Amino acid sequence: MKVQPRTLSGFMELLPREQMLMEKMMAVLRETYAAYGFAPLDTPVIEASEVLLAKAGGETEKQIYRFSKGDSDLSLRFDLTVPLAKYVALHYNELPFPFRRFQIGKVYRGERAQRGRFREFYQADIDIIGDGKLDIANEAEIPAIIFQTFSRLGLRRFQIRVNNRKILNGFYAMLELSEQAGDIMRTVDKLEKIGPEKVAQLLTGELGVPQQAADEILRFIAIRGGNAGVLQALEQYRGRNALFDAGLEELATVVKYLSAFGVPEENFAVDLTIARGLDYYTGTVYETTMLDHPEIGSVCSGGRYDNLAEYYTNKILPGVGISIGLTRLFFVLNEQRMLNADCCAAAADVLVLPMTADLSPAIALAARLRETGLRVQLYTEKKKFHAKMNYADRLKIPYVVFLGEDELSAGVVSCKDMASGEQTKLAYDETLARIQAGLARKYSGTVIRTEE
Amino acid sequence: MKVQPRTLSGFMELLPREQMLMEKMMAVLRETYAAYGFAPLDTPVIEASEVLLAKAGGETEKQIYRFSKGDSDLSLRFDLTVPLAKYVALHYNELPFPFRRFQIGKVYRGERAQRGRFREFYQADIDIIGDGKLDIANEAEIPAIIFQTFSRLGLRRFQIRVNNRKILNGFYAMLELSEQAGDIMRTVDKLEKIGPEKVAQLLTGELGVPQQAADEILRFIAIRGGNAGVLQALEQYRGRNALFDAGLEELATVVKYLSAFGVPEENFAVDLTIARGLDYYTGTVYETTMLDHPEIGSVCSGGRYDNLAEYYTNKILPGVGISIGLTRLFFVLNEQRMLNADCCAAAADVLVLPMTADLSPAIALAARLRETGLRVQLYTEKKKFHAKMNYADRLKIPYVVFLGEDELSAGVVSCKDMASGEQTKLAYDETLARIQAGLARKYSGTVIRTEE
Repeated sequence: MKVQPRTLSGFMELLPREQMLMEKMMAVLRETYAAYGFAPLDTPVIEASEVLLAKAGGETEKQIYRFSKGDSDLSLRFDLTVPLAKYVALHYNELPFPFRRFQIGKVYRGERAQRGRFREFYQADIDIIGDGKLDIANEAEIPAIIFQTFSRLGLRRFQIRVNNRKILNGFYAMLELSEQAGDIMRTVDKLEKIGPEKVAQLLTGELGVPQQAADEILRFIAIRGGNAGVLQALEQYRGRNALFDAGLEELATVVKYLSAFGVPEENFAVDLTIARGLDYYTGTVYETTMLDHPEIGSVCSGGRYDNLAEYYTNKILPGVGISIGLTRLFFVLNEQRMLNADCCAAAADVLVLPMTADLSPAIALAARLRETGLRVQLYTEKKKFHAKMNYADRLKIPYVVFLGEDELSAGVVSCKDMASGEQTKLAYDETLARIQAGLARKYSGTVIRTEE
Repeated sequence: MKVQPRTLSGFMELLPREQMLMEKMMAVLRETYAAYGFAPLDTPVIEASEVLLAKAGGETEKQIYRFSKGDSDLSLRFDLTVPLAKYVALHYNELPFPFRRFQIGKVYRGERAQRGRFREFYQADIDIIGDGKLDIANEAEIPAIIFQTFSRLGLRRFQIRVNNRKILNGFYAMLELSEQAGDIMRTVDKLEKIGPEKVAQLLTGELGVPQQAADEILRFIAIRGGNAGVLQALEQYRGRNALFDAGLEELATVVKYLSAFGVPEENFAVDLTIARGLDYYTGTVYETTMLDHPEIGSVCSGGRYDNLAEYYTNKILPGVGISIGLTRLFFVLNEQRMLNADCCAAAADVLVLPMTADLSPAIALAARLRETGLRVQLYTEKKKFHAKMNYADRLKIPYVVFLGEDELSAGVVSCKDMASGEQTKLAYDETLARIQAGLARKYSGTVIRTEE
């Protein structure tokens, strides 16, 4: 009696060639984060429920994978932020601040199963945590990291949208609408979907905002005109609220340093409609959208917060961070056929086929090729030649090298370029040079196909 | 009221500098496995209990993290082999065979908490799975991969010990002790600990093995004398049992190809006392010991098996694989101070300190350095100079670069080598060249300190 093999619904399990692409994406993220001096972190998947759920409530708590083992009440992490807060509170005395860490890890949420929704998924987070204070320059650096990350992945047509919560909170304070600010921001957030008239109706109707204030809000969120233009337009509000003024200074600083950080104007926009949730963020907030795929929503979001670990410690630990929902991003890119199998989907560069009874010469050849940095698979199954070539083809291995008695006595190797079909019989060095040149062309691409 | 932050006992959570070393070890494993054409695989941490426990029983089952979510009976994986079996059975039609995969992932066992014992730990596995058949050359390749892996990590004094289960099973069949073979092997396994006299006593006493057979067993496991010598000594048994003869052919083949695979004699030994469990393995078996730390036991083990996925499918899927218990290996190496913090423990190569009110020049300098491939952290907190240097020192960042008004007007940058204390004031290109040369020396080491 066999057990039917299956993978749980909501759990991504990729075929090898897809997995290669996912690994490539992760490698690009790791390299980019490392380039900015972020240290990798790896916290447990399981935490004590009491620790993990110190803050959680409502929808999140229902989704938690929570269970007992012996006397212990355990939960699987549902994000990487709470474990970070625990980590920093626990190891506070051993960490130099600012503490810059990245973590790429699986998190768990028992959501309703749905196509494209995952219960186990990777998040890729970076955070910079200060001890008591954290300079605004860190908030200015984040768009540079987002820009580098998506550029290295291969995207061109994306935009990092930035706002500042102090500006929003200060603005609503000017209108004496602080208490309703949360509801108003949620309504304003629908602007792109439902248009300004509907937003105005909801504000004056459901939310009871006075007509004059609603007009002010609509004028405010309609501010456009490039980064300098938006900053200029915001100047007219200066002097009416200290928090607003502080936010405007911060936003101006973030914009000021953009070019030094190497972020092109076209990949960045001040956008006053962005709010990012309600309580957590207190300064700069970020969203990132793919211009040709707005339906995907933000692919990298985050912001500045004032107190990372307040549930665990009295230390004030302000920070700024961003998160990429990697599993969902991969799923969407794969669906849209935006991933570049050419560059990254083969697990080997060369398949070596021994054609002699004694495998030693082929084994030695594979070892020699490997020493140059190539990924080389030795194929030793006793199959027909056609089956062996078919194997290379299915695995998309770009080169097949054969070594028979003829080649051995002539001091050459045979090599087939699987893409062009061209077959050569050349000395080792020449064969290697051809392979290396071909691979350099092949692997020059990025993991996401670059849009024209 | 604060919640006390804590990490569960039996769950490894490293400080940043230790984590860097762990990441370096993982990177070496990934690169080495990739060099042999293994594809990365990533299966879910959670599986349906019915699937995961199709085979398990006894001790393993008690250790499983098993729980319900909604109507589902779920378990956390306790190794990477069962998920591989499921994967291959499930995706059989989409996989070209031989299927070579590596997986480095966390597994879970609720063992009794104990120093150096982990409940969440990484395994790093490679397997080669055939469809119906798998050539013996694959078994010969495994020692080459083990050798490369530990060499690249930095170890020199290690030995890969190899045996063949067919030889053992054939030998016990000759003695008409097949039914007791399991108990006998478990007793023989104690040879190094308790010595040959005690082994003989146990065999003839508890196990009731006839004196003559016990003598034969002791003579057999005492066979020594280098690989050629052991093979020669085994020849005397040839012709008495077909399984034994087949095993001897296989072992001779594995030994024959060693030098072509680049495995030095001193890192390899045929060892007739190695058995590796009882039922699962059917051909070549492997253990790897650190010669100066025999107390650690085998750091990389595995072998040939005939039927990976028999609980899920009627397909015959023979394979060969090895596994490294990475978390435990890291723990031991760290305890023994065998890890090389110099090469791999800093998260940045350069710390850039702006010394001007306008950060733009320092930001641009950091970006420029980063473009050369350096990992560069920009430090923008408003602290005393001493505190900034102390920060670099605590993070073991090897170079600090400053840019003040003086440097800007002179067209130079100041740079301090944190190891030597030497400080220079040179043009950008010269500074970069000094940093690159210094880092090349620093990073030439391996993650495990190479023994003299």
